[in-house]
Amino acid sequence: MPLSLAVLLSGRGSNFAAIHDAIERGVLDARITAVISNRPGAPGIERARQWGYPAHVVDHKQFADRAAHEVEVLRLLAAADPHVIALAGYMRLLSADFVARYPHRIVNIHPSLLPSFPGVDAQAQAVAYGVKVSGCTVHFVDEHLDAGPIIVQRALEVRDDDTGETLAARILVEEHIAYVDALVKLSRGRFRVDGRRVVFE
Amino acid sequence: MPLSLAVLLSGRGSNFAAIHDAIERGVLDARITAVISNRPGAPGIERARQWGYPAHVVDHKQFADRAAHEVEVLRLLAAADPHVIALAGYMRLLSADFVARYPHRIVNIHPSLLPSFPGVDAQAQAVAYGVKVSGCTVHFVDEHLDAGPIIVQRALEVRDDDTGETLAARILVEEHIAYVDALVKLSRGRFRVDGRRVVFE
Repeated sequence: MPLSLAVLLSGRGSNFAAIHDAIERGVLDARITAVISNRPGAPGIERARQWGYPAHVVDHKQFADRAAHEVEVLRLLAAADPHVIALAGYMRLLSADFVARYPHRIVNIHPSLLPSFPGVDAQAQAVAYGVKVSGCTVHFVDEHLDAGPIIVQRALEVRDDDTGETLAARILVEEHIAYVDALVKLSRGRFRVDGRRVVFE
Repeated sequence: MPLSLAVLLSGRGSNFAAIHDAIERGVLDARITAVISNRPGAPGIERARQWGYPAHVVDHKQFADRAAHEVEVLRLLAAADPHVIALAGYMRLLSADFVARYPHRIVNIHPSLLPSFPGVDAQAQAVAYGVKVSGCTVHFVDEHLDAGPIIVQRALEVRDDDTGETLAARILVEEHIAYVDALVKLSRGRFRVDGRRVVFE
């Protein structure tokens, strides 16, 4: 049975596009049952419509508070009934209550080798710190920022002349591979979370 | 002119052996002018003697305190006059005064991709955290633990069935490559430390 996926995004959704491509190419056995954006003008939601996916805008500015916005997102998710919720540049923090509804079923990607450089501007943080290797991390979302159990990481070399921007561009290429790889693993296999370790069986 | 090197160690000195091999093979243009151990029985100091290097034991237990021990080590180093001091499993913290004598000239290796997992048992820390990529870091020593500017890093995959021991064994192979690589870079090139970044020119 294909993995049923919901995608949450706020922007261009380049990781969403990579997931879409992988499904089209037959690399990833999945079905996207909902794409939800909190921003009405997000290019990613335009793409979702073009590609024929159920596309929903839940504009957070139209809601009184975070909780009210999440109620509506959760309602749409409940209707779509996904196995996995993939965050693809979703610029809203999820509440602990939201996360608790989908334990080990919400996936995010971060442009560093966590636990190094959590938070914003991870690529620029890496350049400023002077690491010679960085990468990206696909992980389950838990109640802490950029801290859930890790599914896939990919490393790449940081060059002496890298800026945050040039490094971000190369990491993005790895992100697309890593995100698809993580979803392929989740689509294929049983796993357990042993302490913090995600172990595929 | 060959890079003149002093090596400080406390144990088997497997990174010292890798450096020695690289010199013998002509990969690294360096000359070892002193090998110093704080432990009389360290296998590394036996090797140093076998290989004909000036070998010195400065047993820290024979000194009243850290400062007195360092005075003797510094005296030997001053006589050997190395360009670079390579720590190869040297299990003594260097004082800030010691480090200040050799700014950007003391090199150490750590079995993780710093800034992840500083301190002891880095490999077991990595396994417990559940990272999928780890590695090793060759860095300049500054007054903070495992925090100086990074010269070389090498990454490797962490396997689902890794223990701290199996991961440590694979990282050690990378350490030998990384340490030699870092010393080759230091022997060849000018570099500057720009903020925290080590940039080779």
